[in-house]
Amino acid sequence: MSAVCSFSDLRNQVCRFAKRFKIAVCQPSDEHTLQAVLQVVEMGFAHAILVGETAEGVLEHIPAELCDHIEHIPAEDDETAAQKAVQLVHDGEAQILMKGLVNSDVLLRHVLNKTYGLRTENAVISHIAVFETQELNRLLILSDVAVIPYPNLEQRIAQLNYTTAMARRIGINKPKVALLHCTEKISEKFPITTDYVLLKKRAEAGEWGEILIDGPLDLSCAISAEALTHKRIVSSTEGEADILIMPDIQAGNVLYKSIQLFARNSTSASLLCGTTNPVVLTSRGDTIETKVNSLALAALQV
Amino acid sequence: MSAVCSFSDLRNQVCRFAKRFKIAVCQPSDEHTLQAVLQVVEMGFAHAILVGETAEGVLEHIPAELCDHIEHIPAEDDETAAQKAVQLVHDGEAQILMKGLVNSDVLLRHVLNKTYGLRTENAVISHIAVFETQELNRLLILSDVAVIPYPNLEQRIAQLNYTTAMARRIGINKPKVALLHCTEKISEKFPITTDYVLLKKRAEAGEWGEILIDGPLDLSCAISAEALTHKRIVSSTEGEADILIMPDIQAGNVLYKSIQLFARNSTSASLLCGTTNPVVLTSRGDTIETKVNSLALAALQV
Repeated sequence: MSAVCSFSDLRNQVCRFAKRFKIAVCQPSDEHTLQAVLQVVEMGFAHAILVGETAEGVLEHIPAELCDHIEHIPAEDDETAAQKAVQLVHDGEAQILMKGLVNSDVLLRHVLNKTYGLRTENAVISHIAVFETQELNRLLILSDVAVIPYPNLEQRIAQLNYTTAMARRIGINKPKVALLHCTEKISEKFPITTDYVLLKKRAEAGEWGEILIDGPLDLSCAISAEALTHKRIVSSTEGEADILIMPDIQAGNVLYKSIQLFARNSTSASLLCGTTNPVVLTSRGDTIETKVNSLALAALQV
Repeated sequence: MSAVCSFSDLRNQVCRFAKRFKIAVCQPSDEHTLQAVLQVVEMGFAHAILVGETAEGVLEHIPAELCDHIEHIPAEDDETAAQKAVQLVHDGEAQILMKGLVNSDVLLRHVLNKTYGLRTENAVISHIAVFETQELNRLLILSDVAVIPYPNLEQRIAQLNYTTAMARRIGINKPKVALLHCTEKISEKFPITTDYVLLKKRAEAGEWGEILIDGPLDLSCAISAEALTHKRIVSSTEGEADILIMPDIQAGNVLYKSIQLFARNSTSASLLCGTTNPVVLTSRGDTIETKVNSLALAALQV
């Protein structure tokens, strides 16, 4: 398999799957969520189970041929919708969980429920974001921009597990991983830099298979070969990282928002990791395209 | 004075100053530094004292009329050059200190020297970066992307002193300040958010004169009115912040590099604050334009 370099490639790939996967959508009462779901149904790669309230005036105009692939289960409030949607995935009635217009905290509480939730024992729950930008000729995987505030070593190992697995799923067999920091110096003043040294050793011992890993590196040395040359730094990732391990949620969140604001025509996708099934947890601000991309990314993981 | 919205406005304004200011340049042995210095001499707003080694083949071709405004003081090594350049500013022989191809740590050690250094008693040393981007119709002031790792309350107060003074210097009489965080929630899990609450109170009590301040805000709510509307958040800064107070150096550094990498045609300037005189501490990777902009910004402060 050659590497998937854009979301359009990714969507095309998912469309070739033999079987539709089922998505349980919790409160698709905002138009972006519902439109995204209808698009993936229409593209032929999904069957949707809408749980709770649906955006007004959308379902009435669905073409008849799609109706077979859309179910609706009512729910009186957010809590019930979340419980029902999670239960459907838990019971194998759906393979993917998707958040609509419901508070992330509410949905996550049900996802983490010990009886009917989607938690894998002892697994670290983390977040992956993937960006396509005009500036880079590849998809860029970021972890973690939304869930873990200040990752400890165990959580960083989980982030490397999830991101390298994701990279291979999109056809990057030997992913380049940059461990991000504000400078290239290893210093005990910044404990993440000594964690990075340990991670590099484990990587060299083969923990994540064939990868190229380097850090601490700043953002420009991680993704700009020009910056690397200019700073006269030699890095195995050659300024072409596929994966950026972010120092913490503050830096992660700033990078996520900054690419959205400043990189023209950028699009993204995101997923929760560490659960039994993929969870699409895009936010209210996200476009229909981002939600469709996220569902395609989730489908790769089913 | 109307607000300066671009570096070209800024440079024009500085060119109208009646008197040339004097810059002591420490080790102008890289071409970018030396070219930037020659440009500001040519533009008429500076007199340069080059301390240490100069880039080869540049000084030989200087037009005769500029020679009166360029001096050269030799120095055998980085330490001596740094000591001499700092001393010149300390003694009032120059008003601005500029770093050339010398390690920041070396120069800063001399800047902080108690006998001939440029430290103001008890002052917090911090860093200001200013960006011009196509996306925003104004200059954006960031603090701190390079010096203070994890600012405490006292250091944040200093950052607000420096950034609001800078904003007024470029004609923004009532600056809009966003206190950045990964979400809009105030939570004891993130002590910076409770610091932000205190800063807002002090701002309301008039500590920084007429300003509009809000936070915690994420980057998109700070600089995008559209994101603010979409998230249904009401903010006094209206998605039009002039000043971004960054959570920490990791987030600051990522934003600085990210704007450089992803925002087309962006240019910047940066300065050290808290010293008796402006210190231009741009890095090796910076363009000639960035160095010229930084000198213009420094000139405003003399």
